[in-house]
Amino acid sequence: MNIELMTVKWEDESVILIDQTKLPSKLEYVRCKRYEQIADCIKNMVVRGAPAIGVAAAFGLALAALKSKSKSKEELIKDLEVAYNTLRSTRPTAVNLFWALERIMKKAREGNDIESIKKNILDEALTMLKEDIDVNKMIGFNGSSLIDDGDTVLTHCNAGALATVAYGTALGVLRAVKEHGKKISVVATETRPVMQGSRLTAFELKHDGFDVSLAPDTAIGSLMARGMINKVIVGADRVLKSGHVFNKIGTYQIAVLAKMHNIPFYVAAPLSSFDLKSKPDEVIIEERKYDEVTSIGGRKLVPKGVRIFNPAFDMTPPELITAIITEKGIVKQPYDESIPRLFR
Amino acid sequence: MNIELMTVKWEDESVILIDQTKLPSKLEYVRCKRYEQIADCIKNMVVRGAPAIGVAAAFGLALAALKSKSKSKEELIKDLEVAYNTLRSTRPTAVNLFWALERIMKKAREGNDIESIKKNILDEALTMLKEDIDVNKMIGFNGSSLIDDGDTVLTHCNAGALATVAYGTALGVLRAVKEHGKKISVVATETRPVMQGSRLTAFELKHDGFDVSLAPDTAIGSLMARGMINKVIVGADRVLKSGHVFNKIGTYQIAVLAKMHNIPFYVAAPLSSFDLKSKPDEVIIEERKYDEVTSIGGRKLVPKGVRIFNPAFDMTPPELITAIITEKGIVKQPYDESIPRLFR
Repeated sequence: MNIELMTVKWEDESVILIDQTKLPSKLEYVRCKRYEQIADCIKNMVVRGAPAIGVAAAFGLALAALKSKSKSKEELIKDLEVAYNTLRSTRPTAVNLFWALERIMKKAREGNDIESIKKNILDEALTMLKEDIDVNKMIGFNGSSLIDDGDTVLTHCNAGALATVAYGTALGVLRAVKEHGKKISVVATETRPVMQGSRLTAFELKHDGFDVSLAPDTAIGSLMARGMINKVIVGADRVLKSGHVFNKIGTYQIAVLAKMHNIPFYVAAPLSSFDLKSKPDEVIIEERKYDEVTSIGGRKLVPKGVRIFNPAFDMTPPELITAIITEKGIVKQPYDESIPRLFR
Repeated sequence: MNIELMTVKWEDESVILIDQTKLPSKLEYVRCKRYEQIADCIKNMVVRGAPAIGVAAAFGLALAALKSKSKSKEELIKDLEVAYNTLRSTRPTAVNLFWALERIMKKAREGNDIESIKKNILDEALTMLKEDIDVNKMIGFNGSSLIDDGDTVLTHCNAGALATVAYGTALGVLRAVKEHGKKISVVATETRPVMQGSRLTAFELKHDGFDVSLAPDTAIGSLMARGMINKVIVGADRVLKSGHVFNKIGTYQIAVLAKMHNIPFYVAAPLSSFDLKSKPDEVIIEERKYDEVTSIGGRKLVPKGVRIFNPAFDMTPPELITAIITEKGIVKQPYDESIPRLFR
């Protein structure tokens, strides 16, 4: 395990996050001592990726507990609820955020006194950190059978070490494939507008010695038509019981193109990314800010007064998804039967 | 006609080009006095767009003739052939470049003496400049019947005034639609990596008072799935007799997505963009340089040592194209019958 690429760490009563807005130019860390800093880091995508956001938010509650001056359990729970609401409102689409916050709050409510609650919350957050790595390794193990020696695998956005505590979901599968001795090539998409593919996926795969290439988002169809892609694997911000997958904007059109070119399209996600209650039209798709699209590094790319579409996510319907890889195994269509079985 | 947005002009024995690499921040002009400058401007995309490249190259030969110190017709033709070869090798995909150079060389060979040849070449280039605007207006007139009041039309790259001498091909159709009093909205794609959609299409449509929005290339499928696009119209760098269209990278996948969502997909191109001889696999797809993808405005986006795919164009097969709009009328499938009829 490469500790340098631990996206979320707990150290000296602080949360240490890799500052992903600085990559690939600089590998810098941000130290958060208050939950409000964690909330800002999630909003501004210093930390991003559904599982990493979940664990960071759990530690946010741990920081809120640690800093609380409450004198009773009730007061502590009230302080935690304030932090919970702030952290919960940072981003609306990835479900791991809500899952992690609920899990910590449940633990808090179970405690009897202030000290045991504080200890339980921190223990639970540390467990979730460790679990995240274990879960990713299981996803990697389960998914590695789907990728063959010699494959060229396309991946979108970053579902890697940097989207999780470490190892990654979709890129965890590719790490496992490599550990099994299969030779593969990876094509990362740029992933406009935030460029997670260029900045993060290319960075971490290069860092780990993968054969990695980068393609503009406009070139995906052309590469597929020219027979240069064998498989597609992506992560997920939310998976519904019906098998609808919410993931980084651009995922849906890659799935359409994969279907059209008979290329298997795989999603890798932990059970913490599943939402068995919501229907497709109930999921909020976050619309992000104007200047993610209008400028890069101070360079203005768009004339003033032009309206911008900047949805952060899109929805891929189940009929476009060949299989979903989880820590409990691989599921296929019909998803409304196979997905609930994962939770039994 | 807005003279400010004349992409190519002839003035005081010089060619004046809008410097498209500076847009949308600055509207600046480059003055070319030698054909080598024209060649550099085409290579570096100071001037781009198939029809604009054609006319600029024609003026390149006019400059070569003007500067030639030849004493005989044979010497002049030899000088012109040197310039022809330099200009011809600037970009390999758009066919208007070759069409324009051949047309000027034919005119040159027809002349009897040095002075008449020089005059004929310049007259021919000036005719081509004027013709380009007339042709675009005819394309606009012919295509406007295909767009309805209230439509939201997606366009990719820039097939506008800035891709031609003025008025545009695909955007010429939209200008004609607006002149006919129909209200439409336009969605421009960013068009990574060179961002012609953000920098040029959004600029010129905003300049002319269109209702224009910008979408990252990753959001196109999602916008279509949400019912936010009614029609697609793009330009072309080369159209084959079979109806295969070579255009800016990303066109092919937009055509696939349009088909999948039952959205009409139109191509607007002058007859000078048609190549009735080549087969699909004979067309060279230009692979452009690394740093178009790896950095924007000095900001490094990609870690060192990552391989880059940067094809400038892709091929859209005829079955994805609803109609092709030319100055001689609209053609539909089967293209191998309807396209040759345009040239009779």
